[in-house]
Amino acid sequence: MTGVRVAGTGLTPFGNAPERTSRDLFAEASSAAFADSGVPREDVEAVLYGNFMGELAEHQGHQGPLMAEAAGVQAPATRYESACASSGMAVRDAVMRVRNGEHDVVLVGGAERMTNLGTAGATEALAIAADELWEVRAGMTFPGAYALMAKAYFDEFGGGREDLAHVAVKNHENALPNEKAQYQKSIEVAEALDAPTVSSPLSLYDACPLSDGASALVLTSEAYAEAHDIDAPVAITGTGQGGDRMALHDREFLARSPAAREAGEAAYADAGIGAGDVDVAEVHDCFTIAEVLALEALDLEPVGEGITAARDGRTTADSDTPINLSGGLKAKGHPVGATGASQIAEVVKLLAGTHPNSEHVADATTGVAHNAGGTVASATVHVLEVAE
Amino acid sequence: MTGVRVAGTGLTPFGNAPERTSRDLFAEASSAAFADSGVPREDVEAVLYGNFMGELAEHQGHQGPLMAEAAGVQAPATRYESACASSGMAVRDAVMRVRNGEHDVVLVGGAERMTNLGTAGATEALAIAADELWEVRAGMTFPGAYALMAKAYFDEFGGGREDLAHVAVKNHENALPNEKAQYQKSIEVAEALDAPTVSSPLSLYDACPLSDGASALVLTSEAYAEAHDIDAPVAITGTGQGGDRMALHDREFLARSPAAREAGEAAYADAGIGAGDVDVAEVHDCFTIAEVLALEALDLEPVGEGITAARDGRTTADSDTPINLSGGLKAKGHPVGATGASQIAEVVKLLAGTHPNSEHVADATTGVAHNAGGTVASATVHVLEVAE
Repeated sequence: MTGVRVAGTGLTPFGNAPERTSRDLFAEASSAAFADSGVPREDVEAVLYGNFMGELAEHQGHQGPLMAEAAGVQAPATRYESACASSGMAVRDAVMRVRNGEHDVVLVGGAERMTNLGTAGATEALAIAADELWEVRAGMTFPGAYALMAKAYFDEFGGGREDLAHVAVKNHENALPNEKAQYQKSIEVAEALDAPTVSSPLSLYDACPLSDGASALVLTSEAYAEAHDIDAPVAITGTGQGGDRMALHDREFLARSPAAREAGEAAYADAGIGAGDVDVAEVHDCFTIAEVLALEALDLEPVGEGITAARDGRTTADSDTPINLSGGLKAKGHPVGATGASQIAEVVKLLAGTHPNSEHVADATTGVAHNAGGTVASATVHVLEVAE
Repeated sequence: MTGVRVAGTGLTPFGNAPERTSRDLFAEASSAAFADSGVPREDVEAVLYGNFMGELAEHQGHQGPLMAEAAGVQAPATRYESACASSGMAVRDAVMRVRNGEHDVVLVGGAERMTNLGTAGATEALAIAADELWEVRAGMTFPGAYALMAKAYFDEFGGGREDLAHVAVKNHENALPNEKAQYQKSIEVAEALDAPTVSSPLSLYDACPLSDGASALVLTSEAYAEAHDIDAPVAITGTGQGGDRMALHDREFLARSPAAREAGEAAYADAGIGAGDVDVAEVHDCFTIAEVLALEALDLEPVGEGITAARDGRTTADSDTPINLSGGLKAKGHPVGATGASQIAEVVKLLAGTHPNSEHVADATTGVAHNAGGTVASATVHVLEVAE
């Protein structure tokens, strides 16, 4: 089993670009990743690509070969779809393939075009990540689902809207120096509390935006990186995946994410680390409550205590374990299929000292990326470590 | 690296079942596969699932966890989408994962619900496997695309509609004893030639039908099968994948499938066999011309000579290398996401002596399954061998 290195990362700006196709977005992200990596396109042996709603937003399925073409790569390509965890799943298979010697060099990433559908259209399209027969037909959309989860959390453990507002404030603050972020804009707690309700108890500032964008990573085996003198100081040392019942009503607890716990435990075990070793993390904060649940599932906070983490400064940029230094989905944006691989890209740059927020984690050696699908019916976690 | 065994296979009937959801179909196929395997559901470590058009046909994405649930399995699940090669790609990743020790037991398969869309609706949905911007908007659908390929073949190598009719006649003949086949019905060459034109030069009998259905396989490591005394006489010994430009107009030749050639060469090399070792094959005959192109890409026929293979009896049930003894997509049916894994299931039964057509390949030890997406912009090939 060989080590897996991240040789290069590339992201488009995340934001409103309704006129751009996913192939256009992925061409930009992959070009940036190749330029960053120093790896020639000809060495790529496979393309693994995540996309969620291309069938609805672009009337385009079978995006694997299309994205290989957009990236200027002649290699077999596969599309992975796991709702908002689509490119996280692509990264997971990519890591397993490189680790096991199937390939020396892979291009992995994702893209999503969403804003061309408009807010109502995109919200409806996103709902296909829930159970159509038992949830969506009853009127459930994701703001409503996460509102149920937030309410269940408050009922079981306490906490309230102001605690969640601190998550939003923190992530907006983190996004300020991130030029690729959708919102480079500070917000205040009072502003968040005064924002229009999306689905009670969640307001507009508890929700991530709709975004267009793409992400790409060039992964290589350790042996390839050494043989070709590729500068790739960060390794992916752990990968894990978890699953849960699809519909919320089939779960024992609404305020828990067992799929994320399963993925985290598997990834930690795979890397041979514990939660206490984590120096920095990007977690899937599609809603502020999702960040709280993720912290607890990853054992970065005890169950029932994650709600105060941002408010009390345990996850802010100046804390021991900053969370979502990129700005998170909340402020950086969430082009669904691109998100999982983009989180890996952020952690790589944070650990390599090339992120605009690297100053906050100068001694960090271990990072985690957590990517979730739907109401966390799917989750994948990756551990990244400085290798050189 | 451990060997990979097929411990059990399960298929629903393929055909018109517009009232059945994909979860209903997959529950049936997976139950059959578990019953056939003797492997308990609790031992499954991952579910890998192929589906193509669930977003359009059922307004349901994120089908991975939904299908784990339908199968009664608590394990992380991933959905693969590569148009008509969706479950072939799922099998490929499943093989790599078991081979490399990531998992001992996986459930892999696929499902598609199509006929609820009606003929025009399903044809339009299928078109998302082509290039939306450069092909579909210009009016191209798959009957038209394969008609272009057939015409190019006739122009370059000769042959004609009557040759293709023999492919259809052969595959209908093969389907007669296959109780899961959509058409258990003989046809005559004259009948095929008289059938209404779908897209010249292709007529109705050159095209596979629209179908609903599901397929499932229980794969285990060799070590698991031995330790648990599982009867699994057939091994998957080779896997390969190929890719090509998405749009037909970007290819050098219309009457070639380089992606299938790449996949076949890789799979043969992986298994350490040559085309001459193949005793039986299931190939992706979404149209009769596709079977011809597949035979040539897999080196089972020289380039330019595959067109006469059925007519001259080189691929019929009584030949040395029968092709599509299941009836193929043409007569067995083509529930898109289910097809790739179902082809593996057919080859397994043919090699194990449990297929209604096994008598035609009594001494066969090596089989091949070829699954293609779109106009073969994606292809995957698997080699199966009798191991015990």
